[in-house]
Amino acid sequence: MDQFGKTAGVVARVRAMVQDGTLVAGDAVPSTRVLAAELGVARGTVVAAYEQLDGEGWIRTRQGAVARVAAGVGAGHWPTEHTARDATGHADGSASTGADLLDARPGIPAVTAIAARDWRAAWRAAADAPLRNALSDPAGLPELRAQIAAQLGLARGFAPEIGRVVVTAGTAEALSLVTEGLRNRLGRAPVVAVEDPGYRSGRRAMTSAGATLVGVPVDGDGIDVDVLGRIGPVDAVIVTPTHQYPLGSVMPVARRLSLLDWATRTGAVVVEDDYDSEFRHRGSPVPALAALDATGVVVHVGGFSKTLDPRLRCSYVVLPPGPVHEAVAASRLARGPVVAEPVQIALAHLLRTGALRRHLGRVRRDYTHRRERVATRVAAVAGLEARALDGGLHAVLTWSGRAAGRDVVARMARSGVLVSALEEYEVSPGSAPAGIVLGYGALTLPQLDRALDVLLEVLRVRGD
Amino acid sequence: MDQFGKTAGVVARVRAMVQDGTLVAGDAVPSTRVLAAELGVARGTVVAAYEQLDGEGWIRTRQGAVARVAAGVGAGHWPTEHTARDATGHADGSASTGADLLDARPGIPAVTAIAARDWRAAWRAAADAPLRNALSDPAGLPELRAQIAAQLGLARGFAPEIGRVVVTAGTAEALSLVTEGLRNRLGRAPVVAVEDPGYRSGRRAMTSAGATLVGVPVDGDGIDVDVLGRIGPVDAVIVTPTHQYPLGSVMPVARRLSLLDWATRTGAVVVEDDYDSEFRHRGSPVPALAALDATGVVVHVGGFSKTLDPRLRCSYVVLPPGPVHEAVAASRLARGPVVAEPVQIALAHLLRTGALRRHLGRVRRDYTHRRERVATRVAAVAGLEARALDGGLHAVLTWSGRAAGRDVVARMARSGVLVSALEEYEVSPGSAPAGIVLGYGALTLPQLDRALDVLLEVLRVRGD
Repeated sequence: MDQFGKTAGVVARVRAMVQDGTLVAGDAVPSTRVLAAELGVARGTVVAAYEQLDGEGWIRTRQGAVARVAAGVGAGHWPTEHTARDATGHADGSASTGADLLDARPGIPAVTAIAARDWRAAWRAAADAPLRNALSDPAGLPELRAQIAAQLGLARGFAPEIGRVVVTAGTAEALSLVTEGLRNRLGRAPVVAVEDPGYRSGRRAMTSAGATLVGVPVDGDGIDVDVLGRIGPVDAVIVTPTHQYPLGSVMPVARRLSLLDWATRTGAVVVEDDYDSEFRHRGSPVPALAALDATGVVVHVGGFSKTLDPRLRCSYVVLPPGPVHEAVAASRLARGPVVAEPVQIALAHLLRTGALRRHLGRVRRDYTHRRERVATRVAAVAGLEARALDGGLHAVLTWSGRAAGRDVVARMARSGVLVSALEEYEVSPGSAPAGIVLGYGALTLPQLDRALDVLLEVLRVRGD
Repeated sequence: MDQFGKTAGVVARVRAMVQDGTLVAGDAVPSTRVLAAELGVARGTVVAAYEQLDGEGWIRTRQGAVARVAAGVGAGHWPTEHTARDATGHADGSASTGADLLDARPGIPAVTAIAARDWRAAWRAAADAPLRNALSDPAGLPELRAQIAAQLGLARGFAPEIGRVVVTAGTAEALSLVTEGLRNRLGRAPVVAVEDPGYRSGRRAMTSAGATLVGVPVDGDGIDVDVLGRIGPVDAVIVTPTHQYPLGSVMPVARRLSLLDWATRTGAVVVEDDYDSEFRHRGSPVPALAALDATGVVVHVGGFSKTLDPRLRCSYVVLPPGPVHEAVAASRLARGPVVAEPVQIALAHLLRTGALRRHLGRVRRDYTHRRERVATRVAAVAGLEARALDGGLHAVLTWSGRAAGRDVVARMARSGVLVSALEEYEVSPGSAPAGIVLGYGALTLPQLDRALDVLLEVLRVRGD
């Protein structure tokens, strides 16, 4: 492993210690001498890593003073889910250098699989677009919105007018924006029901934008609509009907209809987070909930983070006509346009030329292989179960013993494999079984094998 | 003029009628036959324009029914300040076709002036950057933040650690984000003092994010700090000390110090909107207020909308160390990263290679010529006065007669020249003199002459 790889490993190791709370703001980090000895790397490697960490704002180094964790970067500030990270760790077995961390947390697709020719052509189109002395439409470029609407018609069962499509800077920004619109419409904090367990980043975005959240349990068919009807007045509910995040259930049509009926009766808004609908490994594709929406209660949220690259920061909301549309459009105007026009032009190019469709065809096959590998290996181990494998880019692994998910995650991290505990998705403690969430979107098959090997090793250590 | 230009003109004309409230949601738009006759264009031109307006969501056309303005797009929903518009109107004298609208509203820089070679090289760098299977840092790419910090050190008199620099999707998003952070820190709506007259889009962003605004008058030295001290508890104040928007005053050092002293004593945050500091046409550059900040009370907001292109949607906040940093960083994490990495890479490239500096050198000369043209022509007219000309991309024109700014704006629009009324910047009615704001960033000298000719014509019509 080259010097750069070792430095990156030390950086990742220290970041992980801050992210999981092992080190908190103000704590001294180990001296370069001590850490170099501990990791068996050159002291200069640690010095370089600390310089990078200082530059990124994780720690503060001062000539002649002890380096400390910077203010404002502790656990809870920059949680793992959204932090810069590197998933290029090597399964070379030298787990103790810190340079071979394998990041198998969910959320990262196989971005490197896009054809370089298509990618460059899209950015060339963006660079060559004539410059206009003009401001952006806050709702997005009509050309991109038309491509999105057409794609929804082909793949998701409904083709909205483009006036209903509003471009956002990622899914979290979309949920933040919708929350702001609802809050301003109501003149108070909206009460938003969320799936329990469910999508943490979405909860954080909505809470920060002023929502009061209420957890609603999830069963094998998705969110429990009976419970939803009993918890008192709710202004909105956010659901993942295509592939519940993280447990993987598909909401059947009967429950979809009763959810829409509940919303129509109570005046609530149903926010559909269609986060990874493009990836179905079994069965036929499920149309969007929005395709069933006869009364205009569904706000549909989709994007390109899972299908293309989460670093493009481009998602969209499809708003039902009426007051919700007006409220969210007013918030969009207030925050201003947020997606650079060159990005919108590049995306529209990838959609129009079919490059995205070709890319999806390729990665879908890869994901299916990975899914099958997980299923096969897990089926061979008594007491271990794999869920959520029908679609998406992650697997939920649960076990019959008493090992707590967090303990398993911590032990796996010590062996150099980062995954997420199912408990982290809970709103109320105990809503999820003990288990881990393993993202395989960016993993090679050998990396996937290594992650599973480490899991089995850890579970055996616990005597399961 | 070709068919496309005529269609664009009709589109712009109808949009303007919706934006200024002449047509409101639900109103029938004129039939294609009537409008074609009125504008002296082919009926097909109007049909094409209506199709585009329908596609963009401004109007709803239905086979066999009257076309109407769509819900949610009336005045107040998509005000002129942030709406897609076209400033390429021709000064050909044929004012009645609607195809030669001259958009001289403030806010649009000379984006087409950037060297095509530099622009393309930046996007090539973005496209060629190695794809990593990784998520973005919500605070922005370290490389871009380091370039921003270095530029601030060179041009604005302070060089923050890059951990204090957080990238945002434009200035409105920055102000929205800071407001959200303050609201969550306080657990209630923050009271934010704003300049009166002042920046409307900023007020809208902060109100939508949950702030309660209080207007504070502006005099020849900027915001009145004595009044600020008397209006009761204030959590934050937003100021434009380098070039008050729109009136143009520069805040002298004595007032800067008393503003900082007030903030330090009361615990308030001072948000410095450094919107067009790069353009000083007279005198030496004024350092940022943040450069004087010894106690960590200033949040500095800057960006590339005025220096480069407002469609890049990339700005930044520089946060003081401490609880405000933590609160705003938590909001940034909650909303997620919002600027696409390719955009950040392209911007960092433009900064690192000096392309942005070369571009600024060119446009600064252009802006100085335009500023001089305004000053010379206005000086020749008794009773007309030009202000705010020492910097920036706009002029404020006031007159001694009784003509109301809004009336003058409406009359100029009827002659095909769009400008903004000074009243539109007011928080309390009467805080600004009667006048107009004319943006010259994207105007050629002949276009500028035409705008001034129309103003003089209109003022004479009113008997001034």
